[in-house]
Amino acid sequence: MVFKKVTLMGSSTESFDDAVDDAIDRAEETLHNLHWVEVEELGVELASVEQREYQAEVEVAFGLED
Amino acid sequence: MVFKKVTLMGSSTESFDDAVDDAIDRAEETLHNLHWVEVEELGVELASVEQREYQAEVEVAFGLED
Amino acid sequence: MVFKKVTLMGSSTESFDDAVDDAIDRAEETLHNLHWVEVEELGVELASVEQREYQAEVEVAFGLED
Amino acid sequence: MVFKKVTLMGSSTESFDDAVDDAIDRAEETLHNLHWVEVEELGVELASVEQREYQAEVEVAFGLED
Amino acid sequence: MVFKKVTLMGSSTESFDDAVDDAIDRAEETLHNLHWVEVEELGVELASVEQREYQAEVEVAFGLED
Amino acid sequence: MVFKKVTLMGSSTESFDDAVDDAIDRAEETLHNLHWVEVEELGVELASVEQREYQAEVEVAFGLED
Amino acid sequence: MVFKKVTLMGSSTESFDDAVDDAIDRAEETLHNLHWVEVEELGVELASVEQREYQAEVEVAFGLED
Amino acid sequence: MVFKKVTLMGSSTESFDDAVDDAIDRAEETLHNLHWVEVEELGVELASVEQREYQAEVEVAFGLED
Amino acid sequence: MVFKKVTLMGSSTESFDDAVDDAIDRAEETLHNLHWVEVEELGVELASVEQREYQAEVEVAFGLED
Amino acid sequence: MVFKKVTLMGSSTESFDDAVDDAIDRAEETLHNLHWVEVEELGVELASVEQREYQAEVEVAFGLED
Amino acid sequence: MVFKKVTLMGSSTESFDDAVDDAIDRAEETLHNLHWVEVEELGVELASVEQREYQAEVEVAFGLED
Amino acid sequence: MVFKKVTLMGSSTESFDDAVDDAIDRAEETLHNLHWVEVEELGVELASVEQREYQAEVEVAFGLED
Repeated sequence: MVFKKVTLMGSSTESFDDAVDDAIDRAEETLHNLHWVEVEELGVELASVEQREYQAEVEVAFGLED
Repeated sequence: MVFKKVTLMGSSTESFDDAVDDAIDRAEETLHNLHWVEVEELGVELASVEQREYQAEVEVAFGLED
Repeated sequence: MVFKKVTLMGSSTESFDDAVDDAIDRAEETLHNLHWVEVEELGVELASVEQREYQAEVEVAFGLED
Repeated sequence: MVFKKVTLMGSSTESFDDAVDDAIDRAEETLHNLHWVEVEELGVELASVEQREYQAEVEVAFGLED
Repeated sequence: MVFKKVTLMGSSTESFDDAVDDAIDRAEETLHNLHWVEVEELGVELASVEQREYQAEVEVAFGLED
Repeated sequence: MVFKKVTLMGSSTESFDDAVDDAIDRAEETLHNLHWVEVEELGVELASVEQREYQAEVEVAFGLED
Repeated sequence: MVFKKVTLMGSSTESFDDAVDDAIDRAEETLHNLHWVEVEELGVELASVEQREYQAEVEVAFGLED
Repeated sequence: MVFKKVTLMGSSTESFDDAVDDAIDRAEETLHNLHWVEVEELGVELASVEQREYQAEVEVAFGLED
Repeated sequence: MVFKKVTLMGSSTESFDDAVDDAIDRAEETLHNLHWVEVEELGVELASVEQREYQAEVEVAFGLED
Repeated sequence: MVFKKVTLMGSSTESFDDAVDDAIDRAEETLHNLHWVEVEELGVELASVEQREYQAEVEVAFGLED
Repeated sequence: MVFKKVTLMGSSTESFDDAVDDAIDRAEETLHNLHWVEVEELGVELASVEQREYQAEVEVAFGLED
Repeated sequence: MVFKKVTLMGSSTESFDDAVDDAIDRAEETLHNLHWVEVEELGVELASVEQREYQAEVEVAFGLED
């Protein structure tokens, strides 16, 4: 099986864990066969939001169907 | 909102600025909700072209619709 | 507006989220116009402390007043 | 012409060359106008397979049609 | 005192904090004189587990006895 | 003479050259003895601005007075 | 299960594939529960050997017994 | 054909584009068969020059004659 | 305690050790509560000086007072 | 003995091993006292060639004669 | 022969050279067949020591007996 | 003036400072117009020498004559 990786960025006002989960949740809506995730970057948005927004850029790897 | 990033490479016989714009212009044709761009690499093609071709590899981030 | 970035390291005995917040809290005491934060490194201090101390090195970006 | 790059991971029980080819073969099934490939990472899976599985993560660049 | 660093990977179904703690807990079982930990990589395993498994690769530094 | 480096981010709706100049212009207002600049990152803001805003993160090195 | 990673360098007069296998073969002699391998560097020794010696530095990950 | 890469640094008081061109122009005077250029670093010299000098470090790849 | 890091570059006609000390000596003149230093880059200036000048770019970490 | 390193890129329609050998073979034609080689990048050219061309960028280190 | 690499950190109140030697001296007490050392990081501890302590993190490579 | 950079590796049984000087001394024998040096890597050879040999890989930048 060949895998493909896509780069997503999720966010949460609670924690970095939730920001990563946010990205994975979104991936699960449209992609099948998710296998693993690599966290690429963590950050916090302060200016354009009401409260601190934790952000996580992740690479999601999923298996391509034959 | 979850963001997705895709990697594009634009080019121009004029300048690196135009090479970046070339990639963004192309992204705007098929993607909605573009938010920001990160320049990954700059280069110049010399051999297979008539005049120097400035190239820019960029990552384009856009918001995924819910 | 021109932004400036400074490098801070916060800590917490609870979590990495709190260690990042610790650095942001300190930045907010003396800096105005904070815009975003990039997490540079995460670590844990074990030897010189009573309980595990989660540490986060972050870059804080803020807008310079004209 | 603007290029796009996608990240794939192929595998082979024979060699790293074949693992790279595996990813390119898959790319050729659905993408047109492939131009070049950059090898990002090489690895070997040992635990979940019967024999050593050579793996190659690659970036495949292809031209976008106007 | 000379320090040595070893690379471990812990995991947790709860959070990245717990995944780091998991690796430190294991280190404390067999190593003395632990001093500090550096987080190298964060990831999430999805395919081979029942629920999302947060993973943390860390370097643990400990003092060598003379 | 000891040098110090600070990290600034300038912007321009015209070009990356101007974005770098923007950061240097701001540095010259408050710092003396500027010696050199290193470009760290180039990007483009698209979402929160009326037209594309070219951005440049730079490190500015200046000599500290004795 | 907590994993540990060790860094080995294998070699072969035949190919890089064999150099990686050389390191894995050695790891299997003394370590149990090997899971995966990451290739860190490839090189060729020329001066101190009779024929070209392909070399591979790898990280071998194995599960620690509880 | 085997390629060789050399590292040059050009400069210009006008723009980074011109600094890159400056290095390529110099390469074309003594090297044949130039194929492509990769931009490695961009900077600005301020202290030892009358006006800002844009600098570009590039790698120039050219084909070796058989 | 929150730490802040600043980037300095010291020099010496004697050695890299002295170049690092030069930067630390300068930091101690204006900063309190210095904790540790990380060496970022080493270099030698040849053209604009009478004899070789060893240079060291360092990051100096100091504790911020509450 | 002082060593010098040069950057070459070899290619082969067979394998990455052969691409590395191609670069070394070329180096041996004009350089003496070759000591070791470091593989910097692996890639595959697809568009401008009849069949897949495996490419390897390497650094070749050789001793300078006194 | 397969090599293994371990990461050590030595220190000295005199110089970085001595800090590297400190780590090698310690390695020679328990490891046979040492071949080479790579310097990974240099730093200086200031807060928890009476005088500046130069530190060097190194990777020590040694041959594994068959 | 366009600069060119070459990569050399010097060595010394005394210190890293001397290893860097060794490379610069060699460069001065055949190159004119040397401007600056960047230290790329430090290491120690142990196995093939009678006493520890400190090694420094450096990039030497020199001005090309018009």
